[in-house]
Order: sequence, then C-alpha cells, then structure tokens
Amino acid sequence: MKIVKVNSENYIELVEKMLNRGEDSFDKIDEIVEGIISDIRKRGDSALIEYTEKFDKVKLESLRVTEEEVKEAVKEVGEDFIRILEKAKANIVSYHEKQVEKSWMTNEGNGSILGQVVTPIERVGIYVPGGKAAYPSTVLMDAVPALVAGVKSIAMVTPPLADGKVNPYILASAYVCGIDEIYKIGGAQAVAALAYGTETIKPTYKIVGPGNIFVARAKRMVFGKVGIDMIAGPSEICIIAEDGDEKLIAADLLSQAEHDEMAASVLVTTSSDLAERVSKEVDVQLKSLPKCEMAQSAIDNQSAIFLVETLEEAFEVVNQVAPEHLEVMVDNPFEYLPKIRNAGAIFLGKYSPEPLGDYFAGPNHTLPTSGTARFSSPLGVQDYVKKSSLIYYSKDDLAGVKDDIITFAENEGLTAHANSIRVRF
Amino acid sequence: MKIVKVNSENYIELVEKMLNRGEDSFDKIDEIVEGIISDIRKRGDSALIEYTEKFDKVKLESLRVTEEEVKEAVKEVGEDFIRILEKAKANIVSYHEKQVEKSWMTNEGNGSILGQVVTPIERVGIYVPGGKAAYPSTVLMDAVPALVAGVKSIAMVTPPLADGKVNPYILASAYVCGIDEIYKIGGAQAVAALAYGTETIKPTYKIVGPGNIFVARAKRMVFGKVGIDMIAGPSEICIIAEDGDEKLIAADLLSQAEHDEMAASVLVTTSSDLAERVSKEVDVQLKSLPKCEMAQSAIDNQSAIFLVETLEEAFEVVNQVAPEHLEVMVDNPFEYLPKIRNAGAIFLGKYSPEPLGDYFAGPNHTLPTSGTARFSSPLGVQDYVKKSSLIYYSKDDLAGVKDDIITFAENEGLTAHANSIRVRF
Repeated sequence: MKIVKVNSENYIELVEKMLNRGEDSFDKIDEIVEGIISDIRKRGDSALIEYTEKFDKVKLESLRVTEEEVKEAVKEVGEDFIRILEKAKANIVSYHEKQVEKSWMTNEGNGSILGQVVTPIERVGIYVPGGKAAYPSTVLMDAVPALVAGVKSIAMVTPPLADGKVNPYILASAYVCGIDEIYKIGGAQAVAALAYGTETIKPTYKIVGPGNIFVARAKRMVFGKVGIDMIAGPSEICIIAEDGDEKLIAADLLSQAEHDEMAASVLVTTSSDLAERVSKEVDVQLKSLPKCEMAQSAIDNQSAIFLVETLEEAFEVVNQVAPEHLEVMVDNPFEYLPKIRNAGAIFLGKYSPEPLGDYFAGPNHTLPTSGTARFSSPLGVQDYVKKSSLIYYSKDDLAGVKDDIITFAENEGLTAHANSIRVRF
Repeated sequence: MKIVKVNSENYIELVEKMLNRGEDSFDKIDEIVEGIISDIRKRGDSALIEYTEKFDKVKLESLRVTEEEVKEAVKEVGEDFIRILEKAKANIVSYHEKQVEKSWMTNEGNGSILGQVVTPIERVGIYVPGGKAAYPSTVLMDAVPALVAGVKSIAMVTPPLADGKVNPYILASAYVCGIDEIYKIGGAQAVAALAYGTETIKPTYKIVGPGNIFVARAKRMVFGKVGIDMIAGPSEICIIAEDGDEKLIAADLLSQAEHDEMAASVLVTTSSDLAERVSKEVDVQLKSLPKCEMAQSAIDNQSAIFLVETLEEAFEVVNQVAPEHLEVMVDNPFEYLPKIRNAGAIFLGKYSPEPLGDYFAGPNHTLPTSGTARFSSPLGVQDYVKKSSLIYYSKDDLAGVKDDIITFAENEGLTAHANSIRVRF
C-alpha cells in the first residue's frame, strides 16, 4: 500500500484526484437507459418481462413474489438467521426512532399561527441489488426508516436469480420488515416501473437503494418525476490513527476494499512507523481474502496511507476527503469530534469497527460516498417524510403588514400579487 | 376559465395531465449546457467572461461586485425599502430558527454511545435570476436559512443587466443578509463556476436557487459533484373553497398565473355557483394586469376550476395535484389539516393569501412544484446542513454482538468484514 507524505500544499490536490475517481462519461449507458425507460412507459409489464429475459436470463410467468416463495425463503435461511435479522432490525428501529421530527405550530400574537407539518411520503420503492452485491442488510437499512417514518405503502424490487427465484436472504429480510409487495425485476427497467408504474406496479413517489451503474443512471433520469435518495458511488473508509495495532487497521481498511475495485481505503497517520507496519500487514491479510483480486485493485489504485505532521493536519485531510466512513482510532476520540466537519458515519475508538455499523449498531449503512458527505447525510427518517409549511393569519395581522407586502410585490413588478392583498381590505 | 366536473373516475387522469405539463425533451438544451460546463472547467474565468458577453451582452472587466456598487444600490432602493427587507428578514429568521435540528447522543448501556451530529455545509452557492424573474425576495429566502444553519461561506451569482450593473434590489437584499461575495454571472456558466470553481471563484458544495431552463438543466448535471436544492418547475396554486368571495379567489388565482405562462391556477369547489362567479371574475381582473398576456396563457392552458361533490373529494384532488401553494378557504380550516397529505405550503383561512407567504410571514417561498410536494419539502435549514452518524462501542458491547456480526457478514460473502471483528478478540 503506497505511503504518501502530505503537506498543506499538496493534500487538496491529492484528495481531489481521489474524489474524482468515479467521474466518467456515461453517454453510451445513458442512451441505453433512456431507451429502457421510454419502453417501460410505453409497454409496461410486457417490456418488463422482455428486459428481464434479456438481462437476467429469466422468463417470468409473473412479476410478483408469492407468499409461498417468501415462506420458503424464511425456512431456507433458518431460525438463527431470522433471529439475527430481528436483533439488527430492533437496533435500527431504536436509532431511527430518535430521528423522527415532529410537526409544530407557534402562536404569533394577534391570533396568527405559523407551523410546519411533517407527513410520510405515501408510497416508496426500494431497489435491492442482486448479483455480487445482494445484501439482506440493504433491505433492513432501506426499509426500517420508511417504517419508522410511517410510510404506508412500500414496493420492493430485486432482480431474479438464474432459476427465477429471489435470493432467500433478501426475501427473509423483507419478511422481517413486513414488506410483502416484492417484484422480481432489476436494472433500469425496475427503476422505470417504480417511477412511472405499469399494469401491475403502482407508481411510487420516491425510489431508494443502491444499484449498478444502470440503476444509478436511471435514478438520475427519473429524479424530478420522483424523489431519489442519492446517487451512490464506490465505498470508502478513512482511518485516523496516531499509533495502534496494524492488524486492526489493516483489517478495517480491507473491509472496504473488498466491496469494489473502485473502493478507496485511506489511513491518515502521524506515525511513519505505523504507516510502514500497516502497509505490510495489508499485503499479508489481503492474500487470505476470497475477494483478494478486487481488494488488491482497490488498494493499489484509489487507496493510500497519508503521512501528516500533526493530528490537526490529519483532520484537515479527512475534511477534504469527506469520507463515507471515518474511524477515529486515537486516544480520547471524543475530544476530536469538533474537528470533524465532513463524514458520513463516524466510528470512535478501537472497538467501533466499520462492519459494526454495517449491520448492527443501529445507524444507517447507506451513507454519502465520493466526497458527497460535504453536502449530504446518511439515509434516514428524513428521507421518507416531507414537510409543508403552514400559515394562518388573522385579519388584524394581515392589515398590519399589508402595505409592506404591496410595496414589496410592486417592486418586483408583480401587480396581481399586490392585488391579492388589496382586495381583502 | 374552464370548469371541469370531477368524479372519482376522472380526477387522477385530469390531474396527471396537468402534472406532466413540464415534461419535455431537453436534448438540444442539454448539449449546449454540457458544452458550457466543460468549457468553464477547462478555461475558467476567461470562459465566464466570454459567455457573459455572448448571453448577457456585457463585457465584464471583473466578475465580482464591488463594495462601492453595493453601497450605491442600497442608496438607490431607499431607506423605506431597506426597512421592509429587514422586517421580512426578521420574520424569515424567526420561522427558520424553529427548524434547527440539534445534534444528539444517547447512552446505550455498558458505555456505548450512539448519536447524530448536525453540521452546516461549509460553503454554498446561491443563484439569483436576472431578467423577468429578478426578485429580491429570492435572496432573502435562499440566504436566511443558510445563515440560520450556520453556513460560513456564501457565494451569490446573478447575471448583469445590459449596463453591466446588477439589479439594485437584489444587491440591497444581499446587503441586508450580509452577503458580500457576489459575482455578475448567470446561466449554466454560473452553475458550472459554482460547482467546479475558477481562478476567481472557489467551488461551493451546494447550489440553491431558481433559474431558467439552462440553469435548471445545469444544476441537474452537476448534481452529485455538488448538492442542489431542487429542480424548480412552473409555479402553481390550488384553492379549496365551499363558497366565498369570488374577488378574493380570482385575485389569488391570478397571483400565480402572472408568474409564468406555464403556471397553473386551480380552484376546487363544491359550489357550481361559486365556480361560475370565479370564472367570470378572473376574466374581469385579468384585463387590468400589466402581465395579462402571460396570465391569460396560464389560465387558458394549465388552469381549471374543478367541481366536486364533497369536500372529501376536494381534498383527494388536492392530494393528487400536490400543489406548491394550497389555500384552504373554508370555514374552520384547521379541521381539515389531517386530510392534507401533499402540499408545499398550506394557507388557512381568508386572510392568508399566498403573497403573504411570498414575502413576509416567515416560511420559505421556495417550494416543491409540479407535484413534487409528494416527496419533497420547502427549502429550509435542513437543506444547508448535513448529518453524520456517530458510533462508539465499548469492548464488552462489541463482544456481545461479535458472533452475530460475523455470521451476518459471512452470509453476505464479506470475509474481510468478518475479519475486522475477529482481529479484535
């Protein structure tokens, strides 16, 4: 793993290079995706069935997963795994319940009232990838905040396996979340179906969940017609350490590297000794991984150990990276919280490794990637609600401000706006 | 104004037709916008100056508005208008302060801590349109929530007038908000500069504010590299009334119609008598408006009076429209609040006309349009902050869940994730 000496002159450039790692031209993919979306809008279910045959090599008799199939899946994964899913779900529910925002109203004197009403989105679609990234934890992390927010109607889509079935762990996870509207479709065609609806699938108002580049581009295209959670990029981890056990640090760096050849694992440290030890240890641990080729590519290309002079500088680098996951493995990690301005999830101390957050602790594992933590947040209850502002003015209060509003409106050249006030007096 | 009888069979279709009013192909515009963005990225300031000469017909000597120009503008608009701006700003601050979300942490037993840290976005860009939609209120509504959120660095862009100056009302409004970093640029080139930076302009992390179709398409293209607030569509108002004064209702319908030929003004009523009276009154009031051609086009094309049997049905129509602005002009309007599921801003009663919200009451006037209130919210403090989740586990607590996490990770085929837990014990 390469060690890069960082100073205040070069760190922005180094980090920028890393952040732009996912920026490519998507013209060809976009053309394909546009075609698929327009086809689903025109021909609905029959186009869905055709694309599923073409891309997933499965000829579907019906789109929807049956109750029977769910029961089978629950049996197949076994009681022990269901119990683990339920424990994880309980933790995720408990964390997300703390995010719930309440509606409010305030008295503004003279009988006027202002407020903000929070309501759940009525119907959402959850995309769950198949193939190499078919994770039951995705279902929990995308569904639980919706349930906590009070979303009444949830449609889940996930591409079928070669035998026409759905990954049983995904179905078991949906079962634990009480989701029973599940369709065996994936790719851009599934996103189009969730956005525009077909004969079988009622359109949803927001689509969440990760997916491959076709899913990501399709989500971007339907954005505006429906809401989307975020455009997920490759995963990344950033670890800050002064000194420490290279075994732990290397293991944590590799836990992200095994996700994707485009993933980035970064250690920022003040110790050149630790840098050397971690670099060697990563090589050692890499060899024993089943996904070692993928991890090797991530380590070789986007990953680095940044050597800095002070912890102060380390946090500056981190804020520039704005990592999806940040592990702060220093003594007294809480002391450094105020220095962190940009990070998706912050893991403090030696016993809070990133995988704890992926499955179990409760916070969401759907996090802003590729530097988007500079302006966006982990998936949460806020993504499944919307707000309406509320205005109730008394006649007296309106009378008190009417001249100001009329002046304001006329200065903006909006006569009808001014009239709307005038006709009331 | 056309009167349409609505029943449970036809209302979804009627409304869908209206909601899709803005859906067009943007291929040609996108090509132009892509070219502009790539040019700004390559050539920075010099490209900015060229495009400003081309589109705004102004040869800029320097991009930034000077202190002197701001002072002049403040003088030009006069003390009275500054006082109105300050009053409006105080109300907007007061409302948005109630939206502030606090960071939190909870003890999870055995010494573990979970939490959510809320931090302001470090630097944002505000786009303020020039031309026919140059509104000082836009500056207040986009800047105040940023100030309340604690954003440290704000860059404002707005296209220059033909004489190379900026609309004095916009500068005065920026002055009242304490914004002193203002650039005389507009269009896709300004969006590109805010997203990628140039020699003069430091890149921002999020871009907010309305604009023409070039601005909207550019925002959509840079979305992901930076955050954006929303893609604003044409404005709309929906009024629910049982009976009432046709003069008030017509004036309020026209206040949206004068914004844009693509605007939609909708009355939903149970009274055919009121429907007739409003329809006639709209024609009368229309004639006296300076922007009567624009308003006429909006009234003729996208607008309608929907006649329903019951108020229950009226609210179903409204929830389907998901209007940007909803006026509930019935007796006891608060009683009907629980029936409203989708609306950007809700105005209750006879003395809460929509223009009150545009300028003065305090809630934001940047609202979800074209049915996007089904999944999105008014601009607010939440748009200028981001959250980080926080995980601190004690050794004991991690030991208690380590086997479950390892099982979960291995079921997902993520060996390095499992290792990251294992190496700690």
